[in-house]
Amino acid sequence: MAASEERGTAAERDNRQAIVLAAASEIVRNGVRGLRVEEVAAAAGVSPALLYYHFESRAGVVRAALEHASEQAPSTALRSAPAGGTGYEALEAALLGELSDDEDVRQAAIVWGEVSASAVFDPELRGAVRKVTEEWRAEVADAIRAGIADGSVREGVEPDTAADILISLVDGLLTRWLAGALDRDDAHRLLRRALERSIRRGD
Amino acid sequence: MAASEERGTAAERDNRQAIVLAAASEIVRNGVRGLRVEEVAAAAGVSPALLYYHFESRAGVVRAALEHASEQAPSTALRSAPAGGTGYEALEAALLGELSDDEDVRQAAIVWGEVSASAVFDPELRGAVRKVTEEWRAEVADAIRAGIADGSVREGVEPDTAADILISLVDGLLTRWLAGALDRDDAHRLLRRALERSIRRGD
Repeated sequence: MAASEERGTAAERDNRQAIVLAAASEIVRNGVRGLRVEEVAAAAGVSPALLYYHFESRAGVVRAALEHASEQAPSTALRSAPAGGTGYEALEAALLGELSDDEDVRQAAIVWGEVSASAVFDPELRGAVRKVTEEWRAEVADAIRAGIADGSVREGVEPDTAADILISLVDGLLTRWLAGALDRDDAHRLLRRALERSIRRGD
Repeated sequence: MAASEERGTAAERDNRQAIVLAAASEIVRNGVRGLRVEEVAAAAGVSPALLYYHFESRAGVVRAALEHASEQAPSTALRSAPAGGTGYEALEAALLGELSDDEDVRQAAIVWGEVSASAVFDPELRGAVRKVTEEWRAEVADAIRAGIADGSVREGVEPDTAADILISLVDGLLTRWLAGALDRDDAHRLLRRALERSIRRGD
């Protein structure tokens, strides 16, 4: 939570949250390029002036929606101590969970993919995409380290490199799945296979 | 080449090609969502009526730009017999080549990524995304089969599954690279490592 947010009143935090949720919904419906600040403000029940007070710019609203989507992602479960099971199992469950028909997860994935795709055209979004991607990679790398420690991941696997490859693979599978070019079950099968081949300790 | 295209006169083919190139340029500049049929027609030096004569709809123009980008992609080199070297080397060169600073390749990658991202919101684009993705996978799978035959790829690798994983990984690396969240050299390093671990025959 940012310092500026901590200082806000409860009403300010509610407004901020309502704006972020409205922005995410708008991105899921129409994409980043279809997002209009006035419509987001109206959907959140606030004035455009209040929206600009909280976020300064349209890009600031989009970045906040990306951070929200990132916090909603199943991989954040890796931040807390796993409830039993190995490091490998926790990682497999988290990454498979990113490709989920659960509506909240699917919407977060659409926001993530759409903001990443928009960053190609909008340099103002690139820092935020880089930041959430690096957080995701660090979570996955830590899970791989836990797996090496508990013997479920092969020794010799480089956690940062393996994490970078795995999150790129999940990103690519997500795009194909959301674009209707890959079934979810096939995406799961491919991801399971890649995990087995790349990091799972042999039986 | 489609039958309808083969039947056209040279002038018709020239017009069609000019429209496709103009559409691709427009997508590189402003994305699919910023593409206006009137501007594409003007840039191609044709009337909007002629554009609709060739492509029937705005989505038809976007699909043609995607097919053009797909034909420009370095992986199409896999269709012709390799000029020496192993199947593994040909595949590595082709996939690394997708992540290239060469301006034509980069622009084709932007079109590919952008049309895929737009297909999340536009069902009319999904069939085309699925088609070019399946063609890409088939080319990669054939290269893997060639590598198994010449001993450069491990026996036991399933060509179709491995190809599906590899093209999804390249797609994810492309998105991160184009979004400014990954350097090209890092993307190459990760792809080389993934290829070594997943399919290269051990020394």
